[in-house]
Amino acid sequence: MLLSDEEKKVTAYHEAGHALVAALREHSDPLHKVTIIPRGMALGVTMQLPIDDKHTYTRDYLETRLAIMMGGRVAEELFLNTMTTGAGNDIEQATELARKMVCEFGMSKLGPITFGKKEEQIFLGREINQHRDFSEATAVHIDEEVRRFADEAYQSAVAILSGKREALIRIAQALLEREVLDAAEIKAVIEGRELPAKVPTPPRTGGGDEELQKVLKPEPGRQPGIQPAPGTA
Amino acid sequence: MLLSDEEKKVTAYHEAGHALVAALREHSDPLHKVTIIPRGMALGVTMQLPIDDKHTYTRDYLETRLAIMMGGRVAEELFLNTMTTGAGNDIEQATELARKMVCEFGMSKLGPITFGKKEEQIFLGREINQHRDFSEATAVHIDEEVRRFADEAYQSAVAILSGKREALIRIAQALLEREVLDAAEIKAVIEGRELPAKVPTPPRTGGGDEELQKVLKPEPGRQPGIQPAPGTA
Amino acid sequence: MLLSDEEKKVTAYHEAGHALVAALREHSDPLHKVTIIPRGMALGVTMQLPIDDKHTYTRDYLETRLAIMMGGRVAEELFLNTMTTGAGNDIEQATELARKMVCEFGMSKLGPITFGKKEEQIFLGREINQHRDFSEATAVHIDEEVRRFADEAYQSAVAILSGKREALIRIAQALLEREVLDAAEIKAVIEGRELPAKVPTPPRTGGGDEELQKVLKPEPGRQPGIQPAPGTA
Amino acid sequence: MLLSDEEKKVTAYHEAGHALVAALREHSDPLHKVTIIPRGMALGVTMQLPIDDKHTYTRDYLETRLAIMMGGRVAEELFLNTMTTGAGNDIEQATELARKMVCEFGMSKLGPITFGKKEEQIFLGREINQHRDFSEATAVHIDEEVRRFADEAYQSAVAILSGKREALIRIAQALLEREVLDAAEIKAVIEGRELPAKVPTPPRTGGGDEELQKVLKPEPGRQPGIQPAPGTA
Amino acid sequence: MLLSDEEKKVTAYHEAGHALVAALREHSDPLHKVTIIPRGMALGVTMQLPIDDKHTYTRDYLETRLAIMMGGRVAEELFLNTMTTGAGNDIEQATELARKMVCEFGMSKLGPITFGKKEEQIFLGREINQHRDFSEATAVHIDEEVRRFADEAYQSAVAILSGKREALIRIAQALLEREVLDAAEIKAVIEGRELPAKVPTPPRTGGGDEELQKVLKPEPGRQPGIQPAPGTA
Amino acid sequence: MLLSDEEKKVTAYHEAGHALVAALREHSDPLHKVTIIPRGMALGVTMQLPIDDKHTYTRDYLETRLAIMMGGRVAEELFLNTMTTGAGNDIEQATELARKMVCEFGMSKLGPITFGKKEEQIFLGREINQHRDFSEATAVHIDEEVRRFADEAYQSAVAILSGKREALIRIAQALLEREVLDAAEIKAVIEGRELPAKVPTPPRTGGGDEELQKVLKPEPGRQPGIQPAPGTA
Repeated sequence: MLLSDEEKKVTAYHEAGHALVAALREHSDPLHKVTIIPRGMALGVTMQLPIDDKHTYTRDYLETRLAIMMGGRVAEELFLNTMTTGAGNDIEQATELARKMVCEFGMSKLGPITFGKKEEQIFLGREINQHRDFSEATAVHIDEEVRRFADEAYQSAVAILSGKREALIRIAQALLEREVLDAAEIKAVIEGRELPAKVPTPPRTGGGDEELQKVLKPEPGRQPGIQPAPGTA
Repeated sequence: MLLSDEEKKVTAYHEAGHALVAALREHSDPLHKVTIIPRGMALGVTMQLPIDDKHTYTRDYLETRLAIMMGGRVAEELFLNTMTTGAGNDIEQATELARKMVCEFGMSKLGPITFGKKEEQIFLGREINQHRDFSEATAVHIDEEVRRFADEAYQSAVAILSGKREALIRIAQALLEREVLDAAEIKAVIEGRELPAKVPTPPRTGGGDEELQKVLKPEPGRQPGIQPAPGTA
Repeated sequence: MLLSDEEKKVTAYHEAGHALVAALREHSDPLHKVTIIPRGMALGVTMQLPIDDKHTYTRDYLETRLAIMMGGRVAEELFLNTMTTGAGNDIEQATELARKMVCEFGMSKLGPITFGKKEEQIFLGREINQHRDFSEATAVHIDEEVRRFADEAYQSAVAILSGKREALIRIAQALLEREVLDAAEIKAVIEGRELPAKVPTPPRTGGGDEELQKVLKPEPGRQPGIQPAPGTA
Repeated sequence: MLLSDEEKKVTAYHEAGHALVAALREHSDPLHKVTIIPRGMALGVTMQLPIDDKHTYTRDYLETRLAIMMGGRVAEELFLNTMTTGAGNDIEQATELARKMVCEFGMSKLGPITFGKKEEQIFLGREINQHRDFSEATAVHIDEEVRRFADEAYQSAVAILSGKREALIRIAQALLEREVLDAAEIKAVIEGRELPAKVPTPPRTGGGDEELQKVLKPEPGRQPGIQPAPGTA
Repeated sequence: MLLSDEEKKVTAYHEAGHALVAALREHSDPLHKVTIIPRGMALGVTMQLPIDDKHTYTRDYLETRLAIMMGGRVAEELFLNTMTTGAGNDIEQATELARKMVCEFGMSKLGPITFGKKEEQIFLGREINQHRDFSEATAVHIDEEVRRFADEAYQSAVAILSGKREALIRIAQALLEREVLDAAEIKAVIEGRELPAKVPTPPRTGGGDEELQKVLKPEPGRQPGIQPAPGTA
Repeated sequence: MLLSDEEKKVTAYHEAGHALVAALREHSDPLHKVTIIPRGMALGVTMQLPIDDKHTYTRDYLETRLAIMMGGRVAEELFLNTMTTGAGNDIEQATELARKMVCEFGMSKLGPITFGKKEEQIFLGREINQHRDFSEATAVHIDEEVRRFADEAYQSAVAILSGKREALIRIAQALLEREVLDAAEIKAVIEGRELPAKVPTPPRTGGGDEELQKVLKPEPGRQPGIQPAPGTA
């Protein structure tokens, strides 16, 4: 997968947005690595490393995740004055999570109540439908609460990134230069410290980082969902 | 399943919430045991022992069950100022029960009438869909009544737990120290009596408590439903 | 199936409610037997014996059936100040019948018109869905008319039972003492006459009453629909 | 199928209602026979004999059919002050026809336009669903127009039967006496002429009337749709 | 298929309505033949002969088609003061076409946008459902626009036929006399010229017109959709 | 596939509309070729050649695509005062893209949130349904935003084409003369320069352009969706 310079730049700012929100919000898992080397469907990845195995998640933690997911799109808008389909996957995940916070975890103003009933396909044990068992009036309230979570996360990302413009630009620049930044390097870049000269990375042999990768579930990444045909009838 | 100290603490307060509401509400089955030893999907369990086999349930009994289910979430909020996905399963069960009280048992202001028609999968005799056979206007009323049951149960739990703050903290502390409390121990802790020194539990051999467990249907427990990926594209 | 004393008492009053409404409403089939001996899923049964085979039913007859069905729940409320899941099956049947009176028999204010179209499963000749072929505005009117039939039946049962409090209590007491009352005995109890001493019933050998039972379709009875788990996570 | 005297009486008045509307409305096919001898599911049948094979139907003809269908229920109400499930099948057919006049034949105020799209089951060539392809606002208009056709037909039957009370009673009486009336006899009864003495009918040998019956599609008749159980739990 | 004289008359006026609108509207394909000889399900057919193969259609052409389809029903109403089920098929096709003009071709006031998403049955490549992907508010607008196309077409047919009453009656009369009219004959009849004496048609041998018929897709014709049973229970 | 002269003319103006918008809007891929030689289902094709492989698309790019798609219909209206079914495919694609911009890419006023949940057919991995998981109120907002994108694109095409009337007419004329125009020729025609004399094209041997065609996904083209039958019953 070969990226044009323009796409590389957008990707660098996009990932820098994720990374800076992750670095500065409370209740965030620590950053592990940021890269703009495409892998699978993803043009870039920002990885975090949970401190411990979690079995439950607090509302603070989930709101932070939403803000981190929004960071990529916000960076595109604030720094490049653009808006790409690359954020589609982030937005989809964020919407799904916000919906769960409202409809499954009872974390919104609608209170400790669940909405919708899962319908499983019997032979496959796979959920195929979310059965709607509430009124249209309730559906309106659910939409409002999902929207509220998304909006607050977006505004949080805007606040963080517009307050740290230089840091974000530095991360994006460093990514364009080095393609990969580890936890220590990101920290240094954010603080405005000089990075040591880049050591040429040895050829990838499946070692080192790959092992860690097994622990980390890589994000499916950017799926534009459209392939504009070059011909118009 | 290894819990972090933070999760253990949240679990202890969560179960203490269930237990204290169960101990203090009228129409409640007597407490049998409370534990924060994870079992299956559940991080902790509060068990009650019905006095007799029930074939029918009164509204009082069911309202009490709702309040007990709400106790876990309420304890998280009142004592730890947090809100976790761990209450998701409680909330789902409570919502389902409240809905049955309105739509199947005719126990709400909507009166002695049922709403919705079960649709069974013919070959499997398994209900696959709840057919909606009423107007949107009625759906609004149903939502309001379900909400009312959930709210009243939540407020009941708030009233009980905020009126017995010390007792709840004592139960949570005892759980963190001993991991399991039986009926007598819970009673003692609530009353502020000293517990006898903890006797080291013999290695689990499937005896004793396990037998009882066959009688008691263990609750499926906490299913967070999300697994936040550490990477954000 | 072993009932606790409390459940026996609720069942006795519940059946007494059915029986007294059946005995006192016009257009009712004559009572045949009332019992609180559990059979199948039912904790108790009130049986009526039609005078002749019916092929069609008048609105008066059906409204009377609705009132009889409501009698059980009403008795729980008026005499025991409780409300149990045991009436769930009565309410479901009454709602279904009221809906047919509105949507299939044209007996409500909506006039001689039918609503909804049955959808049969082709291979099994079994109705699987009630296709909705009317507007939301019409659905509101249908709900109102179904509710009206249910309410009138409920109020009729309230009027009958609160006007004959002593008779109802006598039936319930007699049921608790003898478990079964036949037509003559119910009549005597209602009129306040003394019952002859109870003759010990011979062991059941499948004879006598059982034969009659073939003619009478026993009602599926009380299906609580919930099995409150004793453990709360 | 044995009918009680009460059911026979209701059936006689019901069929007399169909017959008298059929005899007196314009655009009606001529009467052929009326009977209260049960056949299949039907307690009674009113047969008409089309003058010629029709391939299309005028609105006048269809409105007349609606009025004839309503005649049975109207007779029950006006003459016996009752309302039975026996009219359920008439009402269902009338509603279905009125709906077609609005949605398929463009005969209502909604004009020359169709509503709904048939969905056929592909392998069986059998229509299984009526796909709704219009707005809720349109659904309201459709309901109003269907209702209008049904109401006008009902009022037409009321006007005809209340203007000819003696004739209707004479038909019903004659049916109760003779069980079958042919075209000439109905005419005579309506005009108040004496019927010749009843000749004992020869045993049915599948001849005569049966042959005609092949031409006439007998109506499925009365399907009460409920079988009130004699026991109430 | 034998038609009564009444049905023949209605059919002749119906087809004359189609033919006269087709002859007089702009943007219409030229008439080829009109007949009231039943063929398949159709009681009569009006055939047009496209000047050339079309791959796309203009709005003018489609609006003209709508007006031609309406011509049959309009003739029934204006000249025979009746309204038959025979127009059901015309109305259905016109509605379907009007809906496509709004929802697929972007030809209405709703502008260049499509509504609804086809859902194909995968194994058969056959469209089975039109998935609704718009709001109720939009559904109202779509209904209005479909209605507008139908109304304008109906009014156009009314204007044309009421302005040429004599011509229409002449066509209908000629059809009743000759059963078939070709393009030249229709033109002559419209202009009020005398037709040459009818030459007896040779026996049909599958030649001549049949060949042409392969090019022309014969219309499925009149499907009344009801078969009023002569018996009413 | 043989086109009439009228259809050729409409096609030439239609493609000229696409081409001129593509040539003049910013953020557009460069034009490669325009042709009115039918291929497959398409009567004509306008091809663009992306500068580089894109993995993500900006909102500017997608808005430009919408405007190009609208160019064909706009040209029909502005220059030929007609509106054909030939634009149906363009409109369908544009609507689908606009909907994705709103519901999947978060590019509208509704913000960074997704709407609808894809439902895949499990055995085939093929999306069969778009599950609606939002309220009617939200559906109205979505419709408004989709409409806004379509309207703005349409107005953009109107502005461009009505500002360059002579250029458009020149492209259409050149297409009618030569049937194919390459990038250089389109540029020359737009600038009003004379084209060199047309060299007779060698017979197609599958070489040259065909190879390029593999890179370019040809558009499915015009699918009128109706085949007006020449006969009207």
